Amino acid sequence: MNLKPAPELRTAEWFNVDEPLSLKALRGKVVMIEAFQMLCPGCVSHGLPLAEQVHNTFSRHDLTVIGLHSVFEHHAVQGTREAIEAFLHEYKLSFPVAMDAPSQQGGLPQTMRTYQMQGTPTLVLVDRSGYLRKRHFGVLPELALGAEIMSLIQESEQPLSATASAALTSDGCDSSGCRVAQQD
Amino acid sequence: MNLKPAPELRTAEWFNVDEPLSLKALRGKVVMIEAFQMLCPGCVSHGLPLAEQVHNTFSRHDLTVIGLHSVFEHHAVQGTREAIEAFLHEYKLSFPVAMDAPSQQGGLPQTMRTYQMQGTPTLVLVDRSGYLRKRHFGVLPELALGAEIMSLIQESEQPLSATASAALTSDGCDSSGCRVAQQD
Amino acid sequence: MNLKPAPELRTAEWFNVDEPLSLKALRGKVVMIEAFQMLCPGCVSHGLPLAEQVHNTFSRHDLTVIGLHSVFEHHAVQGTREAIEAFLHEYKLSFPVAMDAPSQQGGLPQTMRTYQMQGTPTLVLVDRSGYLRKRHFGVLPELALGAEIMSLIQESEQPLSATASAALTSDGCDSSGCRVAQQD
Amino acid sequence: MNLKPAPELRTAEWFNVDEPLSLKALRGKVVMIEAFQMLCPGCVSHGLPLAEQVHNTFSRHDLTVIGLHSVFEHHAVQGTREAIEAFLHEYKLSFPVAMDAPSQQGGLPQTMRTYQMQGTPTLVLVDRSGYLRKRHFGVLPELALGAEIMSLIQESEQPLSATASAALTSDGCDSSGCRVAQQD
Repeated sequence: MNLKPAPELRTAEWFNVDEPLSLKALRGKVVMIEAFQMLCPGCVSHGLPLAEQVHNTFSRHDLTVIGLHSVFEHHAVQGTREAIEAFLHEYKLSFPVAMDAPSQQGGLPQTMRTYQMQGTPTLVLVDRSGYLRKRHFGVLPELALGAEIMSLIQESEQPLSATASAALTSDGCDSSGCRVAQQD
Repeated sequence: MNLKPAPELRTAEWFNVDEPLSLKALRGKVVMIEAFQMLCPGCVSHGLPLAEQVHNTFSRHDLTVIGLHSVFEHHAVQGTREAIEAFLHEYKLSFPVAMDAPSQQGGLPQTMRTYQMQGTPTLVLVDRSGYLRKRHFGVLPELALGAEIMSLIQESEQPLSATASAALTSDGCDSSGCRVAQQD
Repeated sequence: MNLKPAPELRTAEWFNVDEPLSLKALRGKVVMIEAFQMLCPGCVSHGLPLAEQVHNTFSRHDLTVIGLHSVFEHHAVQGTREAIEAFLHEYKLSFPVAMDAPSQQGGLPQTMRTYQMQGTPTLVLVDRSGYLRKRHFGVLPELALGAEIMSLIQESEQPLSATASAALTSDGCDSSGCRVAQQD
Repeated sequence: MNLKPAPELRTAEWFNVDEPLSLKALRGKVVMIEAFQMLCPGCVSHGLPLAEQVHNTFSRHDLTVIGLHSVFEHHAVQGTREAIEAFLHEYKLSFPVAMDAPSQQGGLPQTMRTYQMQGTPTLVLVDRSGYLRKRHFGVLPELALGAEIMSLIQESEQPLSATASAALTSDGCDSSGCRVAQQD
């Protein structure tokens, strides 16, 4: 297995947390990132309830869940602090959430682009050593996800290879969600 | 049964329709009004899918479904034309939708107040003669709703009593939804 | 619409009722027949809960629900009085249930054969006048079924045509259930 | 943690497998036992679909799923070879299933009694070393079960303590299922 280090998050604002989080500071824990949009039906019905369940099932000592609001459409409606705050309040989401940093050129937000995500919801797993271990667009079975997370939790932290590359390959997508029309 | 005429809708803008609708112009058909907010979880998971299903099950000759966006919280996020348009697009809702007219004094929107709704989602049924026949806050069983709608469809239109009053009484609420904190 | 009278039920034993029922004696009411087998997954997950819900939604004055245990496979396991009694007890079904009369030649039970059912679950609606109005194999949407039942409830009883034939045509089947391999 | 060895299964017949299985012969693998009855609604809707999903998610090299038909009521209907075979066929269950050995005195079947199960469905986990690690009556969340199974998979086999006792304590039950009226 040729592992790549997970690129650092590029975020604009944080919610449900006192201080901004970073993958670097979370080294030593497993990190699950749930990229979503508040107007994405598959995120609301599947991705975010699953993220909340993961947040409440595993020890905070072992795993951190991060919601990443990766807005690539309807920026005026979804892209404001007020919008996320209202959404998190109404849906009673309690895990840390960040606004993905908007693109300078008006396209995909920066973390979404760096991770070459195909749309929302996308679930990302980063191991204790900071390596990218999973990137999945769409719905995931809970039984298998529970097993995969526990497998990562039981690994020891390893030093990152200095020459590891951040290049990603496509997952292939087969489930409902808001897919990016074309990567820019 | 002491029937009351359904008060006319007070709306700001319409979507999914060429011309604004009115209960007066719809006299002769059954009308189902689904009052919702785009950030109300019970509306997104139950009320609006049910409204879409009703819209697609019954003849347009017999029944009209109207979505009423009755924003009583998070006005800056939910209360704009762009917000509704983005929401209707992402959730693929095809029935006519109106923005409930905002209150002059900043409280509940005007139709919601006139109908003394307890929150969202609220389902309203108006018969062919323009009488208010049901106002229900929360989740409804589909089997019983199908029967109730068909019962109204099979009634003939009757002339409205001139002295009928618009006073409403409380339904009593027992299911999840965004309940109004206190009527103003 | 060329209506046919619903053939009389041919049954062996009755449960959840003091006296055997017959379509003739139920003339004047709408009758819903839910043909099932206790080891049919689609009957257990969909057909029978729906029948119980119909039984509890409509007035007993207007409608009678009858469960028809139409065993066409695993006769030794499903076909005994003890088996049905244990099943009705564990699944807490409270509407009248009859054992479809076994075939003399060992094939499909008699009512199932007479109604030319394609398998289980099959839902049959008989109107107040005793005419066969619906025969559907598989899953049905609750909203539409509620409307269809109410439509039949609001009809008046009509005298049966003397020359009406009992010939049935196939429904075409498109949903999961225990389909009869070939009609004998 | 004071671990107890899992008592050996006491079974009458096996299905979906060429040879009878035993915990002793499965030493080195994790074993999940799903105790059920074919007429138990919670087993049919939750326990058995979950067992099939576990059977299809994890490697057969790491884990074996065993269905245990622990009949404690309706023996004449549920307790025959024909009954289990018909049930497994209709519900398309593919993992190994055993008939729990009937009691000599007519009460609870022998494995169910030895494990002091409170009813069906009950899920039991045995680790690679043969120790009893979980016994749960009722519904389990899939995410947590996936994690728990993976945690056991990643353990090494350990020698069983010679003095380990088979005494079990009650789990406390909080979910729907067929609970034993009183332990005999």
